[in-house]
Amino acid sequence: MAKEKTSDTDPAGRLAALRAQLATAKLDGFIVPHADEHQNEFLPPRAERLAWLTGFTGSAGLAVVLADEAAIFADGRYTLQVRAQADGGLYSYHHLIDEPVTEWLEKNLSKGTRLGYDPWLHGVRGVERLRKACEKAGAELVAVEDNPLDAVWRDQPPPPQTPVVPHELRFAGRASADKRQDLAEKLSGNDIDAVVLTQPDSIAWLLNVRGNDVSHTPLPLSFAILNADATVDWFVDPAKVSDELTAHLGNGVSRHKPDGLGKALDKLGKAKSRVQACPDTAPSWVFDRLAGAKADIRRAADPVTLPKAIKNDTELDGARAAHRRDGAALTRFLSWLAATAPDGGVTEIGAVKKLAEIRGQGDLFRDLSFGTISGAGPNGAIVHYRVTPETDRILGDGEFYLVDSGAQYLDGTTDVTRTVAIGAPGAEMRDRFTRVLKGHIAIAMARFPSGTTGAQLDTLARQFLWQSGLDYDHGTGHGVGSYLGVHEGPHRISRAGTAQALLAGMIVSNEPGYYKEGAYGIRIENLVAVTALDDIEGGEREMLGFETLTLAPIDRACIEVSLLSEPERAWFDAYHARVSAEIGPLVDEAARAWLEAVTQPLG
Amino acid sequence: MAKEKTSDTDPAGRLAALRAQLATAKLDGFIVPHADEHQNEFLPPRAERLAWLTGFTGSAGLAVVLADEAAIFADGRYTLQVRAQADGGLYSYHHLIDEPVTEWLEKNLSKGTRLGYDPWLHGVRGVERLRKACEKAGAELVAVEDNPLDAVWRDQPPPPQTPVVPHELRFAGRASADKRQDLAEKLSGNDIDAVVLTQPDSIAWLLNVRGNDVSHTPLPLSFAILNADATVDWFVDPAKVSDELTAHLGNGVSRHKPDGLGKALDKLGKAKSRVQACPDTAPSWVFDRLAGAKADIRRAADPVTLPKAIKNDTELDGARAAHRRDGAALTRFLSWLAATAPDGGVTEIGAVKKLAEIRGQGDLFRDLSFGTISGAGPNGAIVHYRVTPETDRILGDGEFYLVDSGAQYLDGTTDVTRTVAIGAPGAEMRDRFTRVLKGHIAIAMARFPSGTTGAQLDTLARQFLWQSGLDYDHGTGHGVGSYLGVHEGPHRISRAGTAQALLAGMIVSNEPGYYKEGAYGIRIENLVAVTALDDIEGGEREMLGFETLTLAPIDRACIEVSLLSEPERAWFDAYHARVSAEIGPLVDEAARAWLEAVTQPLG
Repeated sequence: MAKEKTSDTDPAGRLAALRAQLATAKLDGFIVPHADEHQNEFLPPRAERLAWLTGFTGSAGLAVVLADEAAIFADGRYTLQVRAQADGGLYSYHHLIDEPVTEWLEKNLSKGTRLGYDPWLHGVRGVERLRKACEKAGAELVAVEDNPLDAVWRDQPPPPQTPVVPHELRFAGRASADKRQDLAEKLSGNDIDAVVLTQPDSIAWLLNVRGNDVSHTPLPLSFAILNADATVDWFVDPAKVSDELTAHLGNGVSRHKPDGLGKALDKLGKAKSRVQACPDTAPSWVFDRLAGAKADIRRAADPVTLPKAIKNDTELDGARAAHRRDGAALTRFLSWLAATAPDGGVTEIGAVKKLAEIRGQGDLFRDLSFGTISGAGPNGAIVHYRVTPETDRILGDGEFYLVDSGAQYLDGTTDVTRTVAIGAPGAEMRDRFTRVLKGHIAIAMARFPSGTTGAQLDTLARQFLWQSGLDYDHGTGHGVGSYLGVHEGPHRISRAGTAQALLAGMIVSNEPGYYKEGAYGIRIENLVAVTALDDIEGGEREMLGFETLTLAPIDRACIEVSLLSEPERAWFDAYHARVSAEIGPLVDEAARAWLEAVTQPLG
Repeated sequence: MAKEKTSDTDPAGRLAALRAQLATAKLDGFIVPHADEHQNEFLPPRAERLAWLTGFTGSAGLAVVLADEAAIFADGRYTLQVRAQADGGLYSYHHLIDEPVTEWLEKNLSKGTRLGYDPWLHGVRGVERLRKACEKAGAELVAVEDNPLDAVWRDQPPPPQTPVVPHELRFAGRASADKRQDLAEKLSGNDIDAVVLTQPDSIAWLLNVRGNDVSHTPLPLSFAILNADATVDWFVDPAKVSDELTAHLGNGVSRHKPDGLGKALDKLGKAKSRVQACPDTAPSWVFDRLAGAKADIRRAADPVTLPKAIKNDTELDGARAAHRRDGAALTRFLSWLAATAPDGGVTEIGAVKKLAEIRGQGDLFRDLSFGTISGAGPNGAIVHYRVTPETDRILGDGEFYLVDSGAQYLDGTTDVTRTVAIGAPGAEMRDRFTRVLKGHIAIAMARFPSGTTGAQLDTLARQFLWQSGLDYDHGTGHGVGSYLGVHEGPHRISRAGTAQALLAGMIVSNEPGYYKEGAYGIRIENLVAVTALDDIEGGEREMLGFETLTLAPIDRACIEVSLLSEPERAWFDAYHARVSAEIGPLVDEAARAWLEAVTQPLG
C-alpha cells in the first residue's frame, strides 16, 4: 500500500494525519515514545517524533494516540511545560511515574483494540510491560516496523550522516583490538557466541571512533555485533566512513550497511548461536528477529558498559588535562562575571553566550557536553532549567547565580556547577550554601572499602542539610564518559542506587544541592575519579577514595565559615591552593589576580 | 511399618541409625537443617536435630546425609567450631554461603536419587531452590512428614509445654481485638480471606500472650489463622492454656489442637478462600496442604511483622522504664568490675555470672534476652564469642573487656554492649575505640527524612573507621521487640539493607564495632527508638531522628578526646549527664559515687 503524505502543519492536523494513517494500517492506536533506536539521551532530529506530533519538547515522555482520544505522559520536571506545549484539547495530561502508561492502557483500551508500537523504539522489557497491560484489557499490542508517524511526517529530517573519525590511541589509551580481545575472552568464558551492541557509546568506545550524529555527545549512530573470536560486524552508513577510518579499524572489523543487521541476526540464529543482548537498552526488534531466527538468546547487560566506565591511565591523564583547560575557561568566565554582574549588566543568556565563547577557544574543544543551565535567583531553584528569551533574567544584586555547564574535549568530558553570589548573600543563603559545601567536601574526602556502592556514600552528602530538616531531590553523582556521554553508567552516587561497586578509574560527579522554590538554587559540582588508596597508615582493608578533577574556585562570599570543621577548612584551603597553582598560569593577568584573591585561605 | 529405635550413643551410631531408617523409608538421603517449624532463632531442644546427629551446635547450618557420604554446611563464624564438633570421618565440611548446598546437591546426587526433607523445617522458597538443584541432577526431592531422624532419636525431648500467659494491656498498649481489627481491615482491602501465621512472635504480639517455650524469647509455640472478620483460629497445645488465658483471649479467638491446622487449611481450600502465607517463614508444609486443598494461595510477607515493629506509646514508655532498670543493673556491674577486675580477680565466666545475678534482681525481670558475650583481650575479637570453661580468661591488665548482654523484662527487651579498659589501654586501642564511638554518636545524632532506610544510615557509623582503612564485618543495627525477640525485622541498619524505611516507633540497635584478631574487640551498643522531629527551625521536610534508650556509662578511659569534634563531645557529655541523673538514684551509694565520677564532662 502506498504511503500517503497528508496535511501536517499544526498539532491537530498532525494528529488527524496520524489517525488516518493508523486506520489505513488497520491499527486502533499507536504509542509515540521520546526515544530513538539506540536509547540515546540526546535524540537526532528525525527521532523527535513526540515533539513533532504534540509540540512537547521535554527530554522524557510518551504519547498514546487512539482513534478518539490521546494521552501524553511527562514526569514531574515537565508538569508545567507539557501543559504549555501540548494542546489540552487534543491530549489528556498524565504523570509518567505516578500514572504509568501501563495503568492508563489497562483502563482505556477496549477489548479487541490493536495498539501499534515501533519495535525499534522500545526495549524488550518495556514491550513486555506494555503487552501485559494490553492483555489485561483484552487488547493486542502489535509491532509495526514501518512507523506510521514517519509516513505522515512530510519533512522528517534524514538520519544524521556526519563523518566517523578515529579516536586516537593517545586519547583512548588502549587499542580497539585489545579491547575486543578482552571482551571476547569474557564472552567465550560465558559460552556466548556473539553479543549485539546497540548503544552508540559502547560501539564508539569499543572501536575507538567518534562522530557527531547527535548534540553534545560525540557519537556515530550504528549497530554492531561483537563475536567471540574478537571480530566485529559493524552496521553503519557507508557515507560516514572514510578510507582513513577503514585503515584505523583494521582487519578485525567488517563493515556492513545498516539494513544488513537483520540478515546477520538471521545467520546467527541459523547457526544456533548463543547471542547476548541487553533487555533494557537493545530495541525489542533485535529480540524479535533473533527469536524468529531461533537463536539461543541470552539476556544480559551490555558488556561494554563496565570496562568503558573504568578509565585507563591515558584517559585519566586526559581527564586531568581537559579539566585544567576547562577550569581555566570557567575561571576566566567567573572573573568576568565578578567584574560585570554587580552593575546589573549580565543576563542568564548573556552568561551562557560568554561562557560558550570562552570555552570554544580552548585546545581540543569540540562541543558543550550538555545545554548550559544558567539560573539567577528563583530560576536557579529549577533543577533542569534551560533559559529562554521569555524567562531570561538579569543577575540581580543579593541573588545567587547557578551555572551548570560542561564541554567535550578530545581528551575528556567535563561537567561543573558553581553557585556565586551577586552582591552580598543573606545569612540563610550562606547557611544553606555551607551545608551543601560540607556535603560536597564529605564526598571529596570520603575513604571507603573496596566493594562499596555509590548508594552507601549518598548520605554523606546530605547529612548536614538533614540536620536542618532540608534535602535535595536529585542524585548526588552520575558517571561521566571519556570524550563520550556526560551521563553514563553503571555506577552512580544516589540513594536509589545500583548494585555496582565503585571501582578505581571510574569518574563520577559530586554535586549536592539545595533549592528553595521561588527564591534561589545552590549546587556545587566537581567531577572526581575513584582512586585506590594504598598508603593509609595502619590500614587493614583495601580502600578507595576520590581524586577531585574539576579545578575552579568556589565562591567564598557564600560561606558561613563558622559552620566548617577544621578538616573541612583544611580541605577547602588546599583545594583553592591547588586551583590557584594549576589554573593561575593558564589565564591572563587580570583573571590571575582575581583568582589569587578569591583562593586565599579562609583564615 | 513400625518405627525401630536403634543405637544412637555416638555420632557414627546415630548416622548409621539414620541411614538404616532412610533405607526402610525407601529414601537415598535426607536433609537435616538447623531449624524448627517456626523458623525460630532459638530452637526448642527437640528441634536440635543437627546437633544431635552431628555434634555441631552452631546457630546456623545444615547436613545432607546420603547412603555413602554426608556433608555438613556452616558459615564463616563456625569454620573452626564445625571441625571441632563434627567428625571429619563422617562428614565433609562445606561453607554455607560460598559453597551453597544447592551446588553440592547438583554435583553429588546421582540420577534417580530420592532425597527426603521434612516440609515442616523448610520455607517454600528454600524448598524450591532445593528442588531445582535436585532436578538438575536428575534426582527427586521428596517431602517426608514423619521425620526419619525423630524415629531414631530415642530420647528426643517432647515439645515444650510451658504455660501461655496474658501480656497485660499495661505493657502491650493495645488490645488484641483492636490489633486483629486493624489487620483484618488490611486483609479485606487486599481481597484476602485469611492469613496463616507461623511465626510465634507474630502470634504472641497479635494475641497479647507470652510463653516460655524457648530460651531468651518469651514465646509460646503455636500456629494461627487470622480471618478477614478479625477472628483467629489458634492451634496450640491445650495443656499450655489456662482458663484465665481463655478469658483474656475472649470470643474472637477459637482454640484448636495443634494437629487441627491441616484440616483448617483443607476447609479454607474447600471454600475457595484466598489465603495468604509468607514464603520465607511459613513451612512449605503449609503451602503443600493449601495447594492440595486447592486454596487460592497468595504469597506475601507476614502482615504482623510491620505493625509489631512500630511500638505504641505504652510500649515505648515500657522500653524507657526497662532500660532504666537495666541501666542500673549494668551500672552496678560495671562499678563492681572497676573495683574488682584490676586485681586480676575477674574471669569471663565470673563476669557473666555476676551480671546475671544483678540483672535477676530487677523488677519485672524474666530472662536474659540472649546468651551473654563476655570476651577479654583476644576473645573480644570473636564477634559471636560464647565463653566456655576451656576458653575462659582472666580480664588482664591493659586489655579491653567486651560485654554484650540483654534482658527480657515484662515491659521491654534490652540489648547493650560496653567495652571497658582493664588498666590503661594503649594509644592504638584508644584511637580505634574513639573511631567506633564517633560512628555510634553519628547514628545517635542522625536526622533523616521520612522514607530513609537503615541502609542509607549505615555509612554514618563506619566513616571514621574507613578514614583509617578499617571496618567491621557485621551490621550496624537490628530491630528489637517489646518483651519479644531481641532480633526482629523488618528494619535494620546495614549496608545489605532492606527496602523498609525507618518509621517512628521502631526500636533498633546502634552498635558499630572494631575487631583486631588475636588482640581485642570493641563494640559500643545502645538501643534507640525512631522519633518524629517536628521542631527543627527552618526545616522543610518531615524528619526523623533517634532517641537513645540505653542508659549506662561509656568508658572514658578508652577515649582519645582530641579525636572528638565539639558536637560529639557535647553529645557524649549530655548523654553521661543523663545517665548520671536517671541511673544515679537507682543504685547504691558506692555505685552512685563511681557513676558520678565516670560521667563527669570530658572537659
